[in-house]
Amino acid sequence: MKKTLIEPRTLKGFRDYLPAAMIPREQLIETAKSVYRSYGFRPIDTPALEYTEILTGKGGEESDKQMFRFQQGDRDVAMRFDLTVPFARFAAQNINELGIPFKRYHVGTVWRGERPQKGRYREFMQCDFDTIGTTSNSADIETLFIIHDLMVKIGFTEFKIRINNRMILNGLLETLELQSQSTEILRALDKLPKLNPQAVIKEMQEQGGLTQQQAEKIISLTTVQGETADILNSLERQLSGSACGEKGVQYLREIFTATERAGIPGDRVVLDPSIARGLDYYTGTIYETFLDALPKIGSVCSGGRYDNLAELFTTQQLPGVGASLGLDRLLAAMQELNMLPDVSTPAPILVSQMDAAYTPEYLRLARELRLNGFNVEVYPDTKAIKKQFKYANRHGFKIVILAGTDEFEDQVWQVKELQTGTQTAVKEEELTEFVRGMLE
Amino acid sequence: MKKTLIEPRTLKGFRDYLPAAMIPREQLIETAKSVYRSYGFRPIDTPALEYTEILTGKGGEESDKQMFRFQQGDRDVAMRFDLTVPFARFAAQNINELGIPFKRYHVGTVWRGERPQKGRYREFMQCDFDTIGTTSNSADIETLFIIHDLMVKIGFTEFKIRINNRMILNGLLETLELQSQSTEILRALDKLPKLNPQAVIKEMQEQGGLTQQQAEKIISLTTVQGETADILNSLERQLSGSACGEKGVQYLREIFTATERAGIPGDRVVLDPSIARGLDYYTGTIYETFLDALPKIGSVCSGGRYDNLAELFTTQQLPGVGASLGLDRLLAAMQELNMLPDVSTPAPILVSQMDAAYTPEYLRLARELRLNGFNVEVYPDTKAIKKQFKYANRHGFKIVILAGTDEFEDQVWQVKELQTGTQTAVKEEELTEFVRGMLE
Repeated sequence: MKKTLIEPRTLKGFRDYLPAAMIPREQLIETAKSVYRSYGFRPIDTPALEYTEILTGKGGEESDKQMFRFQQGDRDVAMRFDLTVPFARFAAQNINELGIPFKRYHVGTVWRGERPQKGRYREFMQCDFDTIGTTSNSADIETLFIIHDLMVKIGFTEFKIRINNRMILNGLLETLELQSQSTEILRALDKLPKLNPQAVIKEMQEQGGLTQQQAEKIISLTTVQGETADILNSLERQLSGSACGEKGVQYLREIFTATERAGIPGDRVVLDPSIARGLDYYTGTIYETFLDALPKIGSVCSGGRYDNLAELFTTQQLPGVGASLGLDRLLAAMQELNMLPDVSTPAPILVSQMDAAYTPEYLRLARELRLNGFNVEVYPDTKAIKKQFKYANRHGFKIVILAGTDEFEDQVWQVKELQTGTQTAVKEEELTEFVRGMLE
Repeated sequence: MKKTLIEPRTLKGFRDYLPAAMIPREQLIETAKSVYRSYGFRPIDTPALEYTEILTGKGGEESDKQMFRFQQGDRDVAMRFDLTVPFARFAAQNINELGIPFKRYHVGTVWRGERPQKGRYREFMQCDFDTIGTTSNSADIETLFIIHDLMVKIGFTEFKIRINNRMILNGLLETLELQSQSTEILRALDKLPKLNPQAVIKEMQEQGGLTQQQAEKIISLTTVQGETADILNSLERQLSGSACGEKGVQYLREIFTATERAGIPGDRVVLDPSIARGLDYYTGTIYETFLDALPKIGSVCSGGRYDNLAELFTTQQLPGVGASLGLDRLLAAMQELNMLPDVSTPAPILVSQMDAAYTPEYLRLARELRLNGFNVEVYPDTKAIKKQFKYANRHGFKIVILAGTDEFEDQVWQVKELQTGTQTAVKEEELTEFVRGMLE
């Protein structure tokens, strides 16, 4: 009787990562971690599952609806939909043991039951870093440094980190006594990239009840342009008398001073008073990062300063600043910009097996190359050599090493460079240097 | 009105990883990945959630009961309880694109609703590697090499990899015409470490209906002791005439020949005809790894050869061999053996802030040290220096770098080694070399 097979398939909105996709993904994650670590950020992890009450109401109605939520025994549980809410819970629960200031990074999978569409998945990875327990602008400056160094280490040279400080707009609203209309004003300002300023002014008047003059002042503040120093001076003038607004300008000045002092190219950091990043969460510096070659894909690394991370879980005030790397967006961009090598193996060298009698020699040689720092695969079978070369080409190996009876008699290895097709007989004691030269 | 706080807590059987636990964990995972990659194994990932039908019935009744399973819309879904069943599904679904042979590693979280107990969690990480699509013993030999090199790279020198081949016992059962009683025989043999051979012989007679002579032959085969060569010869004699058994002995011989040829110390690889590793799954070579200092914690890296990975999902025969590193067990062992440094920061250097006027200088210096390869944290606030040193000691920093007005006037940095308490004034151009010397 023929057995019925189960159809091998993945859930809608979920995907397998094959090696060609997983290799650059792992590399990117490892690069991000190494930069975070270089700034003293510490790794943490939290469970995939939390009590539902921990997660609900934190990411808005949309997040609640999208949560993977179920009963486990008598417990109402849910899969985490981001790393921020678990971090708030984690900090409230462990802060006494951790001490402040506390710098952490967290790379982890999150789940959202969104309607699947092109490029959107129900399972994806987030890559966050935050400094909490300090209001020092020094942490804000380092957040900018990290974003910069991360982009460079990933391989980008042409990008812009756009920064602003929420205190600037808040300061103006304070001066104009418009704090209670801030939601409507922010909602209107969010449309600035799409609408013309006159339309945004009109919306602020209609939705927020602002006077023409009030709305114009806001537009004037958020659209000021020019050299960084000019923008800062202009903001300072417009905010004169607002303690909050002046502080915001001062913090921005400090960031630009420190950035210049540290030798970070000035054209990579742009002051943009129009960015706000959502309505409520951020209260100080905010960051967005755009690739010069692909600005349309949106920000690839964003974040900001907030006043209180964990107010729903503890009375302890935990101010902080942090950002998040958009992993999938970056990988898509790197793919589009041809920055990803077309390989499906982490090893550049394949040792071919020509003759089963010499298997121990092939295995020994491969291991010695590994001890010298190379990644080396041994083809497991002694199939036709043509088949082994096909395998090497298919997966993007750079070098094939082979030897049969003749070579063992002559005590040499044949080293074939796949791209050029050149083949050289090399003595074993010279093999490491020879291969190193080829791979460089 | 006082807001009601939500109690910050984790689910029973789940845990947060704080930095002191997460730092060695990340290091161990990265070490494992680097060894897998050095042998040409390719990274993959699969979703945390699968259709329940993919997962049920594969790990036995126990696994089915322990699955986190729920309805998602009209779909019956479950969280993966291991990486083997998802790999079988993955292979069946993608093998045409991947090609064979296919070597993969997979490091991922899995979930089991076990009754929580000391050291057992409902969420844990697995760390598997497999070669599929080949029956070549060459892949079995490399599996042993990988386990060996992995243990050494993690930092162990005193360990034993115990190997056997399931064809040996199968060969004897074939000769004795006892294949149909293999379950009862294996169940009895599993008790050999605890019971004396006479009791095991008795159980085989009672449960499997074996004659005294048959049971004695089995015990004789599985308990043969001595030098590796003597054991191999003895097995060969006892299995004379069984093609299957003789092949098993030949494969083991090849493993020992290649191991010796590759320069792997002979005392780390032990032939143990008594190990079987479960009843059904494995069909060829099997591996277990024990630490000399802590044999009682059980095997820290185990695996074996199997005939057909994905028979429930495809008609394509996919033989393979692989093993799995016991991450939590290894970390517990390393903790017990004092192999883990007592730090909660990935950075050995803390740059202290004495005077807010110099913040850009502290930040610049730290960044320059990073560009020279050091991990460096800057204390974000200009709090009392005593507090900053307390922070440095608490987290295990090795060096604190500081400077106030005097030092900036003299153009030096004070470098304090925390363990010895020695403090030295160093010119900036000499700082990198000085710090490198201190950390070596």
